[in-house]
Parts: sequence; structure tokens; C-alpha cells
Amino acid sequence: MNSLKPYTEYIESELAKVEFPEKPNNLYDPLRYFLKLGGKRIRPIMTLLGAELFGTAKEVVISQALSIEVFHNFTLIHDDMIDEAPMRRNQQTVHQKWDTNIAILSGDALVIKAYQLLSQIEPTQLPTAFELLNKTALEVCEGQIMDTDFETQEDVTIAKYIEMIRLKTSVLLGAALKIGALVAQASDQDQRNLYNFGQNIGIAFQIQDDILDLYANPDKFGKQVGGDVIANKKTLLHLTAIGKATLEQREIIRQLQNEDKLGFKVNRTKELFDQLMVKEDCQLMMQDYYNRAMKSLDAVEIDSDRKQTLIELAEYLVQRDV
Amino acid sequence: MNSLKPYTEYIESELAKVEFPEKPNNLYDPLRYFLKLGGKRIRPIMTLLGAELFGTAKEVVISQALSIEVFHNFTLIHDDMIDEAPMRRNQQTVHQKWDTNIAILSGDALVIKAYQLLSQIEPTQLPTAFELLNKTALEVCEGQIMDTDFETQEDVTIAKYIEMIRLKTSVLLGAALKIGALVAQASDQDQRNLYNFGQNIGIAFQIQDDILDLYANPDKFGKQVGGDVIANKKTLLHLTAIGKATLEQREIIRQLQNEDKLGFKVNRTKELFDQLMVKEDCQLMMQDYYNRAMKSLDAVEIDSDRKQTLIELAEYLVQRDV
Repeated sequence: MNSLKPYTEYIESELAKVEFPEKPNNLYDPLRYFLKLGGKRIRPIMTLLGAELFGTAKEVVISQALSIEVFHNFTLIHDDMIDEAPMRRNQQTVHQKWDTNIAILSGDALVIKAYQLLSQIEPTQLPTAFELLNKTALEVCEGQIMDTDFETQEDVTIAKYIEMIRLKTSVLLGAALKIGALVAQASDQDQRNLYNFGQNIGIAFQIQDDILDLYANPDKFGKQVGGDVIANKKTLLHLTAIGKATLEQREIIRQLQNEDKLGFKVNRTKELFDQLMVKEDCQLMMQDYYNRAMKSLDAVEIDSDRKQTLIELAEYLVQRDV
Repeated sequence: MNSLKPYTEYIESELAKVEFPEKPNNLYDPLRYFLKLGGKRIRPIMTLLGAELFGTAKEVVISQALSIEVFHNFTLIHDDMIDEAPMRRNQQTVHQKWDTNIAILSGDALVIKAYQLLSQIEPTQLPTAFELLNKTALEVCEGQIMDTDFETQEDVTIAKYIEMIRLKTSVLLGAALKIGALVAQASDQDQRNLYNFGQNIGIAFQIQDDILDLYANPDKFGKQVGGDVIANKKTLLHLTAIGKATLEQREIIRQLQNEDKLGFKVNRTKELFDQLMVKEDCQLMMQDYYNRAMKSLDAVEIDSDRKQTLIELAEYLVQRDV
């Protein structure tokens, strides 16, 4: 991640310059607060890298990079409400620190801010960039509602799950790269290949997220290990387990979902998943999406030397332990 | 309103053609449902009229007109949640018919749809139209949070109240007209004058809304007369009364806010307002904003014959009894 550090720092310093009016406080204070909570800033870095690949300086594309990050933060504010999450990055979420009305409206203001940042672009490029953000933004909403729907659905398949994470997470990574390439006037084919790279890396990233929930090192992991198990989330681990389990094992999984002793619930679930080699299966799937991503990146018609930072980012996303 | 009927019908028929993907149902069914609930469709009609004033056919500007109406509906879905309103236009609100998570996300999808509709415009006009929608959209969020803030503030003045309704309601009417004029390539000065006309008519319209809450004919009025009084809303009527009341009368108003017998509460408040000639004061203010609007419309440099439909719309907005 060392070669990414200057990019993260650049994003942080530029994000700090995004201005909101002083008043009304209850609309803009939550946004000033939330954008300072930090994070990996993967998406805007992807936009910078997507432009640099084709020789366009990061300064040229910074506004679009910030637009993508601000859009992502808008989705987080509303998702935190939906998930009733009290904390994010060890700080209070907006609806927790203020209230739900403020979280709705400041989230709304933030998506508009994302559009405003996008618009600081060469006017001839605006229609295409605008269309890409619109399409992506709707897909992210679709992914989020699918995720919510899954909670009460009994027929969630692995295919549906992958489609959900593609929409909820991955299309924005694809779009982040593509907007960078678009501003850099890359060919349509290179733009498409980069988009596919981002999308597949996004799926691999999300699978790693699911794996880490149960298999992270508790000393390094920022949140509770087994959180998804406790919340009975239909993650890829769970769906893979269900697919491989005997009738008897399925019954155990079902019973564990109603288990009140949470430590026992997590440990017993993990034991069962280990028996079923669930982690290994998920890692294979992750590797498959990683390979697809790399194939798309290979096809981008520039010197492979220039792709190095992007490859490092991709490796970090699937190998990270936090 | 007779001359406006063809416009309303045109908007309804075009709005019915706005398409959403079939799935996910929980994202798009609420939008199909909500856009069919009807309404006065004042905003998109203003966009059509704003273009026609300068000789541009309504068909040319329909997508921008729909964008404005769809944006307005997005704000309604989220506002209904914030206001905990179970009904709108005698039908269930989205959060009531589905749930709050669905109302958040389908509202989010709808604002994106508004941007998508806006983008169907001559590419050279997109940057200006986009900037106008962004600015207006943020202002509407500011107005909405001010409205929410007022509930717990004791120092709300008439000036602050007018600023709140300007942001929450009026800027969108101004923008609706301006986008029409912009597509029709009207001069900057004409665009500004039309915007000011829309904004001032919007304020007059909202004052009429406040007056109707207490003084509407119950047989014609679609909702409960005195709803704002029951909810202790700081409307212009209330703020005017507070400004004119003696210490003793203020104490009565304060006591009435805690009154449980709602019929008595409404009637006694009305009696007091009548003594203070509150309605007449508000009507004078409304007339003042109406006059300002007309002055701006006068200044638009086209034949006054062509302004007739817009004048009719303005008259309807301030004279309506429902």
C-alpha cells in the first residue's frame, strides 16, 4: 500500500477543501463531520489512477474523484440508517449523533453535492460522465434494496447474492475508474476494460469482506468478528455452507440462528463452516473474480509498467486483513 | 384553470410514460405508485409555459418539465417520512404503504431519475441546466431542514419564515420556469425575471397555503381544517398573531398549544386570530409577493398577450380555495 499513500493523502487534503455553506448547521455540520471520518478512499484513488494510466494528471480529474467519494458517503449515511448502525469507523453515525430526519436530509444534500462536483468537467465530457453517474447511482440503490430484501427472503442463491454485491458495491468501483479514463480521453474499449476490471475487483473485494467477518484476526480487525453471523446475514459464507450442508447440518445452522449465546453461536457456526470448507470455496470464488479483473486490466492497451499501482491496489483489496 | 387543462393532461400522459425497470419491485413499485397519485403539476406546467413564452414547443422541453416534477416528488417521499404523514392525496404515503427503508431508497432512486430526465437536453445547454438544478436542489434541502428546525426553535421570525418557504417551495417554482426559458434560449435577463416571478409567486402560494389551513371551506378542503394549529406549526398566521398579541393573548396562545380538545383548540385559536386581524395581514403580505411577481413578469420582454396563461396560473395559485 506504500505507493498508494500519496494518493490517499491527496484525496484527504482535497476532500477537506470541499466546502459547504455555514448554515443551516443541521444540514451541513453532519456532512463536514462525516467526510472527515476517513476510510480507505479506494474509489477516488481509482479515478485518479484511471486518469493517470492515460497520462492525465490527477489534478485534472480530482473533482470527479471527489464526486465518486462524496456519492459513496451519501450511500453510507442512508445505509447506516437502514442498518440501524450506531457506529462507523469507531465514530457515531449521522442518525445516531443527530437524528434520522437530519440523516435523511443531509444524505440528500450530499448526493446533490456529488453531482455538483461531477459537473466541474470539460463541458463536452459532461453528458457521458453524467450518464455514467446516473446509471451507476440507480444500480447502487438497486443493490441496496436487494440487500434489504434478502433479509426476509428464503430463496437467496449465490448467483443472486453476487448480483446484489455487484450492484451495491462493484459498479461504483468500475465507474470510478471509467470516469478517470473518460476524462483522460481513453478509447471506449479501454474504458470498458477498466470498468470490468473495477467491477470484478469490487466483487472479489466484497467476498474478502465476507470472509474477514468470520476469519479476521480479532486483534487487527476494527469491528466485532462474526458480526454477520450474529446478525444472521446471508453472506457468501452462509450461502455456500447452506449449499453444501447435509439436511442435518442445515438444521444445525437454522437452530444456531436462534441461539442467544453469541460467543457459542459464532464459534459453533465457524466450526461447521470449517468442516464444510466454506472459507476455501469462497477464496476460490474470490480468486476467480480477481483473475477476471486481471484479464480485463491486461487488455487495456498501455504499457504494463503503468498498470503497477493499480495492480497493487487490487492486491491490497483482496489480501487485506482489515 | 380551464386554459391550463391541456397542460395538466399533457404532463399526466408524459409522466405515465416515464419508465422504471421491472425489478427490484421494492425500489420501483413505490415510484410507479407515487407518480400516479396526481397533484396540481404546477411545476412542470411552469416549465412548459416558460418555454412557450419564447416560442419553443412544449414537446421540446418536456423532459426537463418531468425532471422538475420527479424531483418534487422525491422531496415529497422523504418529507412525508420526516413529517410522519400517513396519507397524501387521500392515498397512503410510501413509508406507510411499504416501510421507511423503502421510502429512503426509492426516494434516493427518484432524485437520480430526476437528473436522468434533465440530461435529455441539447448538450450545450446541459451545464447551465445542471447547475441550476444542483443549486435549487440544495436550497430545497436547506428549506426543509429549516422547517424541521423551527419546530424546536422559539425565536422564529417572520423574516426567517419567509426565507424558509422561499427555499423549501419557491426556488423550485423559479427554477421550473427558468429551465423552460433556458431551453428556449431566452435572454439572461428574461430568465432572471421569470425566475423572480416564479419565486415570488411561490411565496404567495405558500402564504395562501397557510391561510387555507384555517380559513378554507371545510366542504371543499381535502384535508382537516386547522391541521397546522393542531400540530402547533409556526405558520405565518401563528407568527403574525404572536407579533401582534398582547402579553395576555400570547399566554392564551401558549395555553392553547397544550389543549387536548382539538375542536376547541382550533376554534379558540381562530377567534383570537380574527380579533388580531391575522388573516388580513397575511393576505396583504401575499398580495405584496403577488405584486412583486407581476412586476417581474411585466419586465419579461415579450408581448403581454403571450403571458396570459402564466398570469392565469399565478391567479389560480393565490386565489385557489383548495
